[in-house]
Amino acid sequence: MTTATYAVAGMTCGHCVSAVTAEVGKVPGVTAVDVDLSGETVTVSSEQAMDEQAVREAVEEAGYTLTGRSG
Amino acid sequence: MTTATYAVAGMTCGHCVSAVTAEVGKVPGVTAVDVDLSGETVTVSSEQAMDEQAVREAVEEAGYTLTGRSG
Repeated sequence: MTTATYAVAGMTCGHCVSAVTAEVGKVPGVTAVDVDLSGETVTVSSEQAMDEQAVREAVEEAGYTLTGRSG
Repeated sequence: MTTATYAVAGMTCGHCVSAVTAEVGKVPGVTAVDVDLSGETVTVSSEQAMDEQAVREAVEEAGYTLTGRSG
């Protein structure tokens, strides 16, 4: 299993956390999503390394912006 | 028809607006709900003057805090 942490802008509340978790969780291969609201990051766990573009599109679908890798 | 505007704390995004609009809109007698996110207010329209406690409980049910009348 691998994890990658991304910086995501625009998340402000628990509803935002739920929206991002749901959308990113739908991406094939993703096994877990952990959103850090105050840290403005999303950590994605997957069996294989994820294509960042797929994660980016899911974040945008939820209404937020993936601004890059974090940490 | 009467309207009353309340100060509501904790709303940060469109999801918050939707949650408050939905909950307050369920209160019997309410005919319209208008949330001003940046102004942190909720304006409630109703046929008869509303009981503030009923509005307060709906706001709390949505997860926010009615802090008083506004304007």
